[in-house]
Amino acid sequence: MAKKNKKHTSMARRKFGSRFSTKQKRKEMQTYLGLGPKFVNSIIIGLNEDDDIHVKKIVAGLDEYDLAKLIEVLDIAHRRKLIGILGDKIDPAVIPELNEVVQEQVLESLDEQQIVNIVNELDSDDAVEILENMDDEEQEQIIQRLNPELQYQVQSSLNYPEDSAGRIMSRDFVSMPDSWSVKQAKRYLLNNDELPDEFYTIFLVDEKTLRPTGEISLDKLLRSKGDVSLNAVMNGEVVPIDVHTDQEEVAHMFREYGWMSAMVVDAKGRLIGVINVDDVIEIIHEEANEDIMGIAGAESGDVYRSVFDIFKSRSIWLVTNLFATIIAASVVGGFQDIIAQLSILAVLMPIVASMGGTTGQQTLAVVVRSLATKELNSRNALRMVGKEFMVGLYNGMLFALMIGVAVYLWVPEQITISYIIALAMLCNLTVASLAGILIPLTLNKLKIDPAISSGVFLIACTDSGGYFIFLGLAKLLLF
Amino acid sequence: MAKKNKKHTSMARRKFGSRFSTKQKRKEMQTYLGLGPKFVNSIIIGLNEDDDIHVKKIVAGLDEYDLAKLIEVLDIAHRRKLIGILGDKIDPAVIPELNEVVQEQVLESLDEQQIVNIVNELDSDDAVEILENMDDEEQEQIIQRLNPELQYQVQSSLNYPEDSAGRIMSRDFVSMPDSWSVKQAKRYLLNNDELPDEFYTIFLVDEKTLRPTGEISLDKLLRSKGDVSLNAVMNGEVVPIDVHTDQEEVAHMFREYGWMSAMVVDAKGRLIGVINVDDVIEIIHEEANEDIMGIAGAESGDVYRSVFDIFKSRSIWLVTNLFATIIAASVVGGFQDIIAQLSILAVLMPIVASMGGTTGQQTLAVVVRSLATKELNSRNALRMVGKEFMVGLYNGMLFALMIGVAVYLWVPEQITISYIIALAMLCNLTVASLAGILIPLTLNKLKIDPAISSGVFLIACTDSGGYFIFLGLAKLLLF
Repeated sequence: MAKKNKKHTSMARRKFGSRFSTKQKRKEMQTYLGLGPKFVNSIIIGLNEDDDIHVKKIVAGLDEYDLAKLIEVLDIAHRRKLIGILGDKIDPAVIPELNEVVQEQVLESLDEQQIVNIVNELDSDDAVEILENMDDEEQEQIIQRLNPELQYQVQSSLNYPEDSAGRIMSRDFVSMPDSWSVKQAKRYLLNNDELPDEFYTIFLVDEKTLRPTGEISLDKLLRSKGDVSLNAVMNGEVVPIDVHTDQEEVAHMFREYGWMSAMVVDAKGRLIGVINVDDVIEIIHEEANEDIMGIAGAESGDVYRSVFDIFKSRSIWLVTNLFATIIAASVVGGFQDIIAQLSILAVLMPIVASMGGTTGQQTLAVVVRSLATKELNSRNALRMVGKEFMVGLYNGMLFALMIGVAVYLWVPEQITISYIIALAMLCNLTVASLAGILIPLTLNKLKIDPAISSGVFLIACTDSGGYFIFLGLAKLLLF
Repeated sequence: MAKKNKKHTSMARRKFGSRFSTKQKRKEMQTYLGLGPKFVNSIIIGLNEDDDIHVKKIVAGLDEYDLAKLIEVLDIAHRRKLIGILGDKIDPAVIPELNEVVQEQVLESLDEQQIVNIVNELDSDDAVEILENMDDEEQEQIIQRLNPELQYQVQSSLNYPEDSAGRIMSRDFVSMPDSWSVKQAKRYLLNNDELPDEFYTIFLVDEKTLRPTGEISLDKLLRSKGDVSLNAVMNGEVVPIDVHTDQEEVAHMFREYGWMSAMVVDAKGRLIGVINVDDVIEIIHEEANEDIMGIAGAESGDVYRSVFDIFKSRSIWLVTNLFATIIAASVVGGFQDIIAQLSILAVLMPIVASMGGTTGQQTLAVVVRSLATKELNSRNALRMVGKEFMVGLYNGMLFALMIGVAVYLWVPEQITISYIIALAMLCNLTVASLAGILIPLTLNKLKIDPAISSGVFLIACTDSGGYFIFLGLAKLLLF
């Protein structure tokens, strides 16, 4: 029970911050995420001066939430040093509070026995979150040394696919037979030490099959008279989540249906876990982050990474981009002869390519996000393609006119070039708009994440396309 | 009470889907958001054939959640037609369920009296959400005709700034004096018809000042013995949210502290409202969407917009982009003489500019998101600038080498050009990386949303900069 009680206190503190009191607290918390700058500076000075005793003393006063924030706020070198000093003394509850990148860095600084000690103190869902990021061998080593109950729970969670409901669900929930009375339910809750630390809903199951038959929220229970049977007041039209459902789908259902918690069932329909809304908030946040970073070719958590790690992850994306630009350059290379004769073409060609790129990016962002949130689906995809085509065409016409006039005013003696750039703009913006939707839709159909892979195809298309259309038209009409 | 009961039923249904039953239901819901394709087609046929009776009959069987989905799924013309047919018969609870863009379209199809009738049936937070999107005159007209209680609530909410806690809070919450016993609390809940439809936490206040002193979650209440005083079991270290706090900040606190609900207090510290986690989920979702769309220069909800509306919103962004590219083109124009002499420069220059743009975009996405989530703040901003500089430098060196070798292999007879493009790449990627962080940090300091405005400055910087560095070096070293 020690573990549970511990977590309970920690949740309460987490819920209300801690150390400070009221007014000053609120101000500092909002500004500095719970830690004043003086406080952090005093830790940094302690770390720089290797004053371990001073550091330990200050850190001892922090709850796990503030300690996590402190670890995140330090740079990598100080972070490692602090973990080195704390060693075994680090509160296990700190680890799940850490940003994923920082968590990995901290675990790297600990030895296997220290990690085992930490994981043994965690709930199974937190333990799984930590273990699933390790390589197989290390993971196996640690699981072997966990206490039997946790070992069993962790192993069965890890058997479910990554990012599935089975991985994120908690096995700690309150369920009871729907045949009980309200009075029985209330008495059960009053005299039970084995309950989870926090819960919002009671799940009702058929005693024989263990299949969910309904649920009752705590406020409903509190408002119901004691002699009524639970199945008379429960909400009976349950939508249990299959344990293999992807977490993005889970988050979507929570958002759409306004759930606080949802039941997870196995292939036989038996209740095996629960997902609460606070875990879902993290998922929504992460999935949105992944979309943004995917489109831009970056990774979230870079704030916590070392320069070399950031460099590695970004350079991969830049290499694919280099190929796309080399293709575009070789398109230009095919028209080198006419550029040599009429260098103004080189001046104007980036305008067509760049406007196409921006148009395509606009469409791409909308499409990638709408696919992720299912606003865009098989039913309206075709209609949306039609709309994007029209939007591209309208923008093409508008900017054809604008650039045509601008170029005419600039070089009135070469009016054909105005026509050429206007026509190229019209074509390239229309193509870009179409590419911005067709590329992600195609990738999505092929089960390739459109957020990550669409960008490079789009650039290849709008840059090469833009140069080809503009220079091709010039060759056709001017030479 | 009619209103409350109504909402209660609807919440329950929403929580569990409806119409279908179990297995088939789950499958259809996940695939088609609650509505089978046959069902939607039969509505569309009815609308096309002006068979109002048929349409009304089918729609009558839908709860407000499914009706909202149906309205969203139709195209604009069918959407308007359906609203026209339903008219007064539309369930008010449907309106808050709609996507913001669709909601506006639906309200445009209704007359003022119909809107008043709908808003009168809503809770104050839903009413505010609808009213705040209207222009002032229309808003005033409708508020004047609301029932007095709702009118008062709506007016005082609208007095708070847009996107503040005061706008999103609900005024419907459960509070009681902290001096009560657990037994008194339970009895109060059992015999009270005026409670909100759903609640998860009881807020405790000082009877005299109405200031919050603590809170107790329902599971804690259920587990506590009847003769204990509430202030003995409550969580007393509360972090109330000031009513003027921005919703992004509110969402951040919920995510950081794992709250289920939070108290909102006025300037005097009195409890005046509550924000629940389900509203916060929507905010997190929206704010992330805004960041993505801002970076790309698009708007969310485009799936539901008409071609002309999409065209309008995107063309504004494209106009600013046009200026940026014209500036870049005029930079190239300054080197027209050397391009005329050596046209390979025109072939290679887009590579430098494009790689710079991509590098800058990577940094920009990370920085904009980290600013929004406060991972990046005044404490680590300088450190991050240093890291981005180093990442830009490393990438610059890597790609200088790669492009230098590639160009040498392509045109071995002009080895100086290899050096020039390598050097230009090194400079431009470093500049791009720095610009990707300095631009959004500066805008953020100036209280301009970095997500929306950074992109165009970045493009101006990396394109113009890339051309200038490459062509400038060429002029210096080759001519």
